Amino acid sequence: MSLDSFHVVPPASHSRSRIALLGFGTVGSAVARRLTAPDAPRSLELTHIVDRRAEHKRDRFGNDGIVWASTIDEILHRDIDIVVETIGGLEPATDWIRRALAAGKSVVTANKQVIAHCGAALWTLAARQGRQLRFEAAVGGVMPIVRAISDGLAGDRITRIVGILNGTTNAVLSRMESLGSSLEEALADARARGYAEADPSGDLDGDDARAKLSILCALAFGLRVDPTVIQARSAAEITGADFERARRHGRTIRQLAHAEYDRATATLTAWVAPMAVPRGSIFGRTTGPQNVALITGVHAGEIGVFGAGAGGDATAVAILSDLAAIARDRAAIVPAPKLSSDFRFQTSDLNLEGSELPLAEAV
Amino acid sequence: MSLDSFHVVPPASHSRSRIALLGFGTVGSAVARRLTAPDAPRSLELTHIVDRRAEHKRDRFGNDGIVWASTIDEILHRDIDIVVETIGGLEPATDWIRRALAAGKSVVTANKQVIAHCGAALWTLAARQGRQLRFEAAVGGVMPIVRAISDGLAGDRITRIVGILNGTTNAVLSRMESLGSSLEEALADARARGYAEADPSGDLDGDDARAKLSILCALAFGLRVDPTVIQARSAAEITGADFERARRHGRTIRQLAHAEYDRATATLTAWVAPMAVPRGSIFGRTTGPQNVALITGVHAGEIGVFGAGAGGDATAVAILSDLAAIARDRAAIVPAPKLSSDFRFQTSDLNLEGSELPLAEAV
Repeated sequence: MSLDSFHVVPPASHSRSRIALLGFGTVGSAVARRLTAPDAPRSLELTHIVDRRAEHKRDRFGNDGIVWASTIDEILHRDIDIVVETIGGLEPATDWIRRALAAGKSVVTANKQVIAHCGAALWTLAARQGRQLRFEAAVGGVMPIVRAISDGLAGDRITRIVGILNGTTNAVLSRMESLGSSLEEALADARARGYAEADPSGDLDGDDARAKLSILCALAFGLRVDPTVIQARSAAEITGADFERARRHGRTIRQLAHAEYDRATATLTAWVAPMAVPRGSIFGRTTGPQNVALITGVHAGEIGVFGAGAGGDATAVAILSDLAAIARDRAAIVPAPKLSSDFRFQTSDLNLEGSELPLAEAV
Repeated sequence: MSLDSFHVVPPASHSRSRIALLGFGTVGSAVARRLTAPDAPRSLELTHIVDRRAEHKRDRFGNDGIVWASTIDEILHRDIDIVVETIGGLEPATDWIRRALAAGKSVVTANKQVIAHCGAALWTLAARQGRQLRFEAAVGGVMPIVRAISDGLAGDRITRIVGILNGTTNAVLSRMESLGSSLEEALADARARGYAEADPSGDLDGDDARAKLSILCALAFGLRVDPTVIQARSAAEITGADFERARRHGRTIRQLAHAEYDRATATLTAWVAPMAVPRGSIFGRTTGPQNVALITGVHAGEIGVFGAGAGGDATAVAILSDLAAIARDRAAIVPAPKLSSDFRFQTSDLNLEGSELPLAEAV
């Protein structure tokens, strides 16, 4: 279907929102369990699951009332109100979200890459279709930062966001700190606990946090920032000696994501890097797979949010909250952030070249 | 006008939401300044101000385009979309909010007493009228806790809320801690900084925090809890000797508000009291007029929010955010929390009678 053709499904007459779930991995199966549990929200009904290994997974899940399929084509024009995307990665997730919106479904996604790279086009499409596109789970797990920025601080002018946005890296660094273990040992532990994938390079190198920071720049500053232009320094080379040096200065090391926008000069400063932070600061005290963010507003001063940044159960809470918001108000349109390309990107302030770890102006 | 008669104003044809402001004190005037500033949100237009001293204040404010009145009767049936209530206290605020909703206006209020005591009836009225009633500013100032609970954690089952909800008392206690000053000295300082009213007894005694906790119980647990049944112990008797004793145990003293709901036994445990908390905990580290809250969900674990809990500018941010949410979607209804009276109130766990300060199970 071409993006120029639209057809909008009229509001369904049933009172429960019918949900199709795309992807049945860690997050998808956690969502499915919540939606089929005895205490599931009564306004939500899981009716379809799409997974390329549907044949195999259907039997293990064993819920009779649900229709399984292996591609979105089989279910797109069925009686579905909301599509939940938990596939991850850019494709086919982007294409499937686009087609779901074009077919008149509202969409909830946990996919930071899709929103970071294609959010603007998808928001526009959702607005044209009169449908919602929600993505609280894409940034910060259950930490409600998308709502805090786009809704709770809508009445302010945000100037700065600093946070720990990658739970895997934080689990690794805080374990290196507390046990004096090597990065390899800490990584093996994080894998054993389910906080790290087999290949954690996207976490340690900062790609994951860059995608999340790009989304937050769109929400907070109205800027369209390609994640790949955000400066990043990898945490993969951090050693016990770095922690020892930080400790002598009352500090520890965390992967911080930082974005600051000076509207007067239209200058965005954005980076992801391992930084030395005071041990007693909110960053230094954030351990394991937790996320935290400090948001500075001109009028509000500093507000903060924190919570579990990873894990199927926590991510499922964010998705179910988005589903509940849509079920309450299926006709409403999520406001599309104002995006502009009117900014210069300055790297002079990033302080990424020094051989010493830069000191964050942390709380 | 009787509550049994309803008349709903059809959606206005103009694209900006026209706003009537009730009350022109600290918060009201901060809202008026924001709405008339050069960078005011373009979707919002301040058109009416009601204050019993309108004659006097009109000249000082000096904005030509705004209609002033001294009672709501003069403006209620004018072309107004949203009424913002910043009068404070139960009456006439409750009556005016009720009449605004009955006249088909959406309402934003910063009034914790009105929402704590009459929230259920007002939510019902707003729902019947197809209008919104928003009150983020009533709890926690700019800390977005109303949204975090009723929206961001809608997909979870909340079991516990613990927080610092009164900025005045926190400013007093944290100053007693840091400077070793007496309560009277700390209070005088808080007054000088604008954090405390002439009569701070409602803050120190816990009345203010009880009203806020009552609102959070409605949102998180679906319970209707009269603020006066929440157990409270005053912070007005705390002395330097209490701080010294706490310090010897690595602790300090904060006024905590605590609510925990056991759904299996339908038992709510709710209290406000000065508690000894670890100095390095998030409570111990919350100083000045800041607020903080930890919310525990069955699936999400613990999430937290913090931010300025008092002050006209911070409160105005929360009000403007609520206005923006209504302006985006004026036809929508804020979901009315499910309220029930099916609970017993247990005081045995409160540990309020001991001569020693109880130790909070704090972070």
